Amino acid sequence: MDQQQLFVKMAVDGWNQQIKFTNNTLDKISDEELLNEISPGKNRGIYLLGHLVAVHDQLLALLRFEDPSYPELRPVFIEAPDKAIADLPPVSQLRAQWHAVNNKFSAHIDSLQPADWFTRHASVSEEDFEKEPHRNRLNVLMSRTSHLANHRGQIVLLVPKG
Amino acid sequence: MDQQQLFVKMAVDGWNQQIKFTNNTLDKISDEELLNEISPGKNRGIYLLGHLVAVHDQLLALLRFEDPSYPELRPVFIEAPDKAIADLPPVSQLRAQWHAVNNKFSAHIDSLQPADWFTRHASVSEEDFEKEPHRNRLNVLMSRTSHLANHRGQIVLLVPKG
Repeated sequence: MDQQQLFVKMAVDGWNQQIKFTNNTLDKISDEELLNEISPGKNRGIYLLGHLVAVHDQLLALLRFEDPSYPELRPVFIEAPDKAIADLPPVSQLRAQWHAVNNKFSAHIDSLQPADWFTRHASVSEEDFEKEPHRNRLNVLMSRTSHLANHRGQIVLLVPKG
Repeated sequence: MDQQQLFVKMAVDGWNQQIKFTNNTLDKISDEELLNEISPGKNRGIYLLGHLVAVHDQLLALLRFEDPSYPELRPVFIEAPDKAIADLPPVSQLRAQWHAVNNKFSAHIDSLQPADWFTRHASVSEEDFEKEPHRNRLNVLMSRTSHLANHRGQIVLLVPKG
C-alpha cells in the first residue's frame, strides 16, 4: 500500500466509522422519539436527521460524484433552522433517504481511485486549487466526518435509557 | 509541498479547527453554566470539559509525545461516568488545564516531521504495525478530532441564547 492509498484508507475508515456509529444510534431511537428536542428549546432529532441527509446529499455534488437526489431538503434542513417550517417529511422517509444517500456514497468511494481524492472539490476553481492543493475532495470528506460526529453527539441524547 | 506534508496539513488543520471551535464555544459559557446538564439527566458541561482534558492529556502519551500531565483526571473523567464522583476539580482549573494540554499539543505538532506522523502510536506493537500501517499517529489524531467534534456538539447546548 503506497502513502496515498494509506491516507485515503485512514480518511475513508474515519467516515465509515462515523456513519456506522450514527446508524447504531438511530436504530435505538423510535420515530416518535426523534420528534423530541435533544435538549429543551434546541433542535429536534427529526431536524438533525434531515440536516444530515441534506448535507450528505449536497456533498455528492461538492465531491463531483453526482447531482443531489433530494434538492428539496436543502431549503428545509440547511437554509432554515428547526421549527421555521411546520411541515417536515415523515421520519420514515428521512430514514430511507439517509440510508440511500450513504449507499450512493459508498459506491462512489469504492470506485474512486486514490489519486482522484486529491483533485479539487466543486467549490474551488482550478486556478485557486493550484495554489491551495489541500482544498481537495478528501479534505471535504474529512471535514464532513467531523460535522457528522458533531451532530451524532447530539442525536445520541435521544436514546432512551436501557 | 509533497504528498506527505499535504496529508499532515489536512489532518492537523482539522484538529486545530475543532480546538478553535471548542474554545469559541467554551468562551460563551460561564463557569456556573458549565455545571448544568447538557440535557435533563445527561452529562454536565464540567464533566465533558474534564473528559476532553483527560483524553487529550492521555493522547500526549498515546502519540509518544510525553507523559500525561494530569493522570489524576483519568479515573474521574474517563473511567468514571458523570456524577459517580462527587468532588470534581473547579471549572477554572479545568479550563486552565484544557488550554495547557492543547498548547503542549501545538508545540509537539509544530516540531514533528511529516514522516514521523506515519510511525506507530504507543498502543500498537512494532510487529502489528508492520502489518497494519494505518495504525499510525496521524490516524489517532484524526479519530480524536471526531471525538472532540462529538463532544463539542454537546457542550454547545449550554451556550445561553444571545
